[in-house]
Amino acid sequence: MGSTIGIVGSGVSGLHLGLFLRAHDVPVTMYGDKEPDDIRAGRLLNTVGHHHHTLERERALGVHHWDAGEYGYVCHHHCVGGELRFRGDFDHPSSVIDYRVYLPRLMEDFQERGGELVIMPSVGVEDVERLSQHHELMVIAVGRRSMEDLFARRDDKSPYDRPQRRLSAGIYSGIEYSEPKGVGVHFSPGHGELLELPIYSHDGFATALLFENVPGGALEPLAHLRYDDDPAAYDRLVLEALRAHYPMAAERVDPDAFGLWSSRDLLQGALTPIVREDYARLSSGRYALAVGDSHTVVDPMMGQGANSASYSAWTIGEAIVADHVYDERFCQRVARRREGFVHSVSDWTNLMLNPPPHVMEFIGAMSQDKALCDEFTSNFNDPERQVDVLGTPERTRAFLAARAATHESAAV
Amino acid sequence: MGSTIGIVGSGVSGLHLGLFLRAHDVPVTMYGDKEPDDIRAGRLLNTVGHHHHTLERERALGVHHWDAGEYGYVCHHHCVGGELRFRGDFDHPSSVIDYRVYLPRLMEDFQERGGELVIMPSVGVEDVERLSQHHELMVIAVGRRSMEDLFARRDDKSPYDRPQRRLSAGIYSGIEYSEPKGVGVHFSPGHGELLELPIYSHDGFATALLFENVPGGALEPLAHLRYDDDPAAYDRLVLEALRAHYPMAAERVDPDAFGLWSSRDLLQGALTPIVREDYARLSSGRYALAVGDSHTVVDPMMGQGANSASYSAWTIGEAIVADHVYDERFCQRVARRREGFVHSVSDWTNLMLNPPPHVMEFIGAMSQDKALCDEFTSNFNDPERQVDVLGTPERTRAFLAARAATHESAAV
Repeated sequence: MGSTIGIVGSGVSGLHLGLFLRAHDVPVTMYGDKEPDDIRAGRLLNTVGHHHHTLERERALGVHHWDAGEYGYVCHHHCVGGELRFRGDFDHPSSVIDYRVYLPRLMEDFQERGGELVIMPSVGVEDVERLSQHHELMVIAVGRRSMEDLFARRDDKSPYDRPQRRLSAGIYSGIEYSEPKGVGVHFSPGHGELLELPIYSHDGFATALLFENVPGGALEPLAHLRYDDDPAAYDRLVLEALRAHYPMAAERVDPDAFGLWSSRDLLQGALTPIVREDYARLSSGRYALAVGDSHTVVDPMMGQGANSASYSAWTIGEAIVADHVYDERFCQRVARRREGFVHSVSDWTNLMLNPPPHVMEFIGAMSQDKALCDEFTSNFNDPERQVDVLGTPERTRAFLAARAATHESAAV
Repeated sequence: MGSTIGIVGSGVSGLHLGLFLRAHDVPVTMYGDKEPDDIRAGRLLNTVGHHHHTLERERALGVHHWDAGEYGYVCHHHCVGGELRFRGDFDHPSSVIDYRVYLPRLMEDFQERGGELVIMPSVGVEDVERLSQHHELMVIAVGRRSMEDLFARRDDKSPYDRPQRRLSAGIYSGIEYSEPKGVGVHFSPGHGELLELPIYSHDGFATALLFENVPGGALEPLAHLRYDDDPAAYDRLVLEALRAHYPMAAERVDPDAFGLWSSRDLLQGALTPIVREDYARLSSGRYALAVGDSHTVVDPMMGQGANSASYSAWTIGEAIVADHVYDERFCQRVARRREGFVHSVSDWTNLMLNPPPHVMEFIGAMSQDKALCDEFTSNFNDPERQVDVLGTPERTRAFLAARAATHESAAV
């Protein structure tokens, strides 16, 4: 029968791991908190992009049901302070599929391929201890709240003790797509950022607006305003915010058609970025591995969370099929293999939340150099490289100097 | 001009790294302690095998001057207590080239390809500090003695505080090669092991005998006996040791032709296995990376030292050409990428020096199962896998049980 793996959580990391294991005939049970149809009918979960490396894993798993050529986008349109505008192209398209469409479909794929799905509304550490008696390894992929006691915070990798943005994500009609179809990356210095995302959702194509509002800034109220109290007032305030802070989006809005789809298509809140330990030993002697938000929580600004979770899940899957005992040695190997990627996602995102001068200089350089901007954009697939370039003032300076030297010698 | 790397040491790790960097047009200076001709004329340095993965790197570097098909060997002939004999075949041949032949040739290759070789008889930590002003990164590859202050001992990975074997390695005539040509791996429980190696040396093909003598055992005197005091008596004692403890070698000896080549073809001594930290920050602010014996010292019993050093050098070379600043982030990446391999070499060798019952059981299983023995033998190229199989009783038990289950279901 081979090894049996227990996965707690049915988000992207749990599903990509579960599907990987089923593709290798490994028995696996997934403990999810909601039935697929309840997820379909539920509230907006996030607005995250899947980048090329994640889509490649979906292709390998046979679950790339939304062809990136049709559903995806090809670039980032940047706008700083309304005026400075510059585009960065991807080597390969990314896409944003509403997780209320995406996750239920993959849960059904998982079951069709022999994966066992058990619905347990609320799983705590005691449940993990108990379930571990039935599995050789537990993988914890439950999101950021319920398993805090199991995996200790890594202070050395967690620079913040509170949210750096107050978030408002919603699905809107009445915004024409940019040309070429891309994500709008809008900066309003001192107030925050807007990610304007071409999303495919339950009613088809639309635009997700993810407002990343600096606490105390002019836009923070967007994270608290209650839509149901007065939908028209809500839509009016959002449109005013676009006009005042994010003109590159406002200019494509049809005011008569503009508005949030519905109350359930809005997600407001805040999160504290955190990196946790990779694994824990359970009292049963078995091990629990953290993955996705159970392992690292990143602000959604750079659109990396799901991609990091999927990368991490794949690393775990490869390690499971290559090994035969899931002990501390196994867990340490997983930790080592994913660290470069997963910690870079966290370090890079944390850096961009409060960009130091050398990062601002780099953004300035990108605005004047499309090839550099294309490279930065495609490197959304390579967060380790982003930190290699941006991690310290010395790194950014040396990178830009070497680049300038290459261009000069090419010009000679 | 690009980055400049300073390498202290001209052993296998320094040379493989230097040649890798020259293949990528990176300026590099190597600080060696001896001219090539002095190494050629000197004492035996070791008797280490290069396994397939190391030979593959030599091929990639264009320095595989001793075709493994002609100079190499294809198997391990095991013998436990004189009676129990069993063979393990490699997937690809390994070879033993005397380092007095090997190193000088690669030093000349390095210089011909634009590498700078500087001879400095004795380099200490102060010299590294001074030299670091001329290089962006220092790589320390000087062997196991002279740089102890720079890289701290890792107690968690260094189980021994004294040598586990007293060593005698020498090059002998008068021993017919085994058929097929292989390394003899002889065990004399309680007294030690003999590695019988088909070596290519300054006067052509011969046999290296590496006696791994347990301190206090009957064979320890081999590590202390002075050849020059009475060469004939020395040869007689070695032959008696073979007859009493290692009959599978003794039976291929021609007594009239048997003997050590010469005084300079003998190396006696002992070493304490140790794992050190990967890197250190110099007072100049630059970094020094440890490689080879400067990083980990392993007993030669499993023939892994040079292979681990070469693997590590390659990892460093790849990291250097992929990055543009050689700071702590860079050093941590190197550490992470080589850890699985290099620490497994150390863990595996340390385990075999004092094999616990589950390892003895595994050797027993190999003696009855040639496919298992072939796998173990080819895994001299994959030390991480060796520890996956042998690292704990649970791992060995689960591995053998899964293997038996596969065979049973195949037989049905």
